[in-house]
Amino acid sequence: MENMPAQAAAPPPTSPAPSPFPGLITREQEPLNLELPFPTLTEPVVPTNRFFVRSHFPIPALAADTWQLHIEGAVHEALTLSYDELRQLPATTLQATLECAGNGRARLTPKSKGLLWEQGAVGNAEWTGVPLASLLARAGVAPDALEVICEGADQGSVNDEPRAPGVISFARSLPLAKANQPEVLVAYLMNGQPLPPEHGFPARLVVPGWYGMASVKWLTKLTVSTAPYAGYWQTLEYAYWQRSHGQPTLVPVAEMQVKAEIARPALHEAVPAGQPYRVFGAAWAGESDVASVEISTDYGQTWQPAHLLGEAVPFAWRLWEYSWTPPAAPGRHTIQARATDRAGRCQPTTHDPDRRNYMITKIASVEVFVS
Amino acid sequence: MENMPAQAAAPPPTSPAPSPFPGLITREQEPLNLELPFPTLTEPVVPTNRFFVRSHFPIPALAADTWQLHIEGAVHEALTLSYDELRQLPATTLQATLECAGNGRARLTPKSKGLLWEQGAVGNAEWTGVPLASLLARAGVAPDALEVICEGADQGSVNDEPRAPGVISFARSLPLAKANQPEVLVAYLMNGQPLPPEHGFPARLVVPGWYGMASVKWLTKLTVSTAPYAGYWQTLEYAYWQRSHGQPTLVPVAEMQVKAEIARPALHEAVPAGQPYRVFGAAWAGESDVASVEISTDYGQTWQPAHLLGEAVPFAWRLWEYSWTPPAAPGRHTIQARATDRAGRCQPTTHDPDRRNYMITKIASVEVFVS
Repeated sequence: MENMPAQAAAPPPTSPAPSPFPGLITREQEPLNLELPFPTLTEPVVPTNRFFVRSHFPIPALAADTWQLHIEGAVHEALTLSYDELRQLPATTLQATLECAGNGRARLTPKSKGLLWEQGAVGNAEWTGVPLASLLARAGVAPDALEVICEGADQGSVNDEPRAPGVISFARSLPLAKANQPEVLVAYLMNGQPLPPEHGFPARLVVPGWYGMASVKWLTKLTVSTAPYAGYWQTLEYAYWQRSHGQPTLVPVAEMQVKAEIARPALHEAVPAGQPYRVFGAAWAGESDVASVEISTDYGQTWQPAHLLGEAVPFAWRLWEYSWTPPAAPGRHTIQARATDRAGRCQPTTHDPDRRNYMITKIASVEVFVS
Repeated sequence: MENMPAQAAAPPPTSPAPSPFPGLITREQEPLNLELPFPTLTEPVVPTNRFFVRSHFPIPALAADTWQLHIEGAVHEALTLSYDELRQLPATTLQATLECAGNGRARLTPKSKGLLWEQGAVGNAEWTGVPLASLLARAGVAPDALEVICEGADQGSVNDEPRAPGVISFARSLPLAKANQPEVLVAYLMNGQPLPPEHGFPARLVVPGWYGMASVKWLTKLTVSTAPYAGYWQTLEYAYWQRSHGQPTLVPVAEMQVKAEIARPALHEAVPAGQPYRVFGAAWAGESDVASVEISTDYGQTWQPAHLLGEAVPFAWRLWEYSWTPPAAPGRHTIQARATDRAGRCQPTTHDPDRRNYMITKIASVEVFVS
């Protein structure tokens, strides 16, 4: 041993900075895409550091003191607002559930393109911001205007199919009929605190009732337009097929569809035989309300009502529970949950391919082991 | 030899039926896609059996006595026309050059998706038919109508990316501003004869000045519409990017762009040294006219005017020639041709990626061997 070279004292191990989102599952590192492990859901409002993150490009480094929001296009007077000016305007606070339009994509067969989200690209938070309608009213919208193109500061190139042309920003348009609803906010607080960079600091759109792609983060420009906008994110991506005269027509993904998710039991959870088990989850219904959630343990032959928890909050999901007593004998069982909205719309049993790989609301199924 | 078994008289060899398009290059057998070998071009009007064939689905078997054309949607009175009724209406005969929007795609680098047409997915023919405007006037178009959805009887499923939803027909919409131009025909004769099945029998649209996808074959339905149509063939296919406020917007491919093609010399043709050679080709300019064609033999440093042949015919290509005397010494040379339209628009030197794999008009180059 005396022949071994003397070793310099090893430098102390450098540990990486702790993740700001310790409880989330990484679906993609760059750009950052993080999912809530849905079986860990407990409360109606998801803490900010447990809220799913959806990014299309690297997170832009924006500073509050230089950020500006431009409102232009078919308006009486173009406006520019600073962060301080925005925060001095009359504000609204509300809850809204945001779900990525591709949530549940991992369930599709055959395997789909796009990020393979399981159940948890969805969350409910409290948002504070200025109603978009009030900003549009200040600018004065032209009488022939149709929609508002909402553009973020995030940009880059999309090199996977379908390709985007060169460097583009994330941008979506919102029809004025929705943009002028009082629930649509230019938000700067999430759960009472300034937005984290990952959620759109300094300000983002929050479009309650619509899939998440409408809630443009790092919002920097609103362009009022008299023509339908056909940008990448509402034609090649985030668009689906509607039938009109039998012919399919590509339309932008918009309102969230009614959906129940089972948080517990988790997939392949071991459940004690013969004892009551609390099945628990959440359901949401876009611009409507959840009217009922039902549970089946016999592969959809019969359905029993689940108990809706708390009070209905507009645009927020509703937690629910159901007491299930599995048989005394060991075996495999499947729990299914389905929600119905106030308009009587229910969930499909299979995914309609016209929805492409978006709006995935086929009835959730969880297989468990009773032992 | 006496040990050999007696042979039955061999049946006469069965030869396949002669191709109705003997001089065309097959790019795809099913659906049928055939290209004119462009170096064989001689006359301004291409004979019907040498006109390129572009099909998206199997050719539908339509009979003249049962075919009907339906005109419906936002009209005062829906109409149905038989083949005989169509042929009894006042008709127009005109020449029109049709070019597939993907013609020249084999030239793009990197290799593009889609059929790899060389130069010859283009042709000029004489068409006879009823002006679409007169049919629309008979039906009475609603004052808020925007466009006409033109649907063919050809249908099927598209299983390559980008996928189409289920079984769809080929359909495109035409803005009313174009649909009402006198040159747009519901055509039933091609070069004076009934359309062959491959070219749309019994009747097809001919939209002079626009890329070929607008000239819907096997036409069976015209739906007047008050909203922009976003079918597969004008969103995921046959659409390109236009910039508006710096953001790319997907728009349907429409008017043909100015373009010259060199028929002769052919690629890598051996050209005698020191003797005059007749460079020959065609040029077309969409809804405009060809103002000039120029030739370069020094890699685009200098350009010499070509001679335009015959008279200008609206919507038809113009043949041209240029007398080139190569040097007396052997060597490789490159001939380039470019056209300019009446509005002063010329061809680009490189393909704009915003055009995706359509509207390929970068300046043609042909390398030859002088010996």
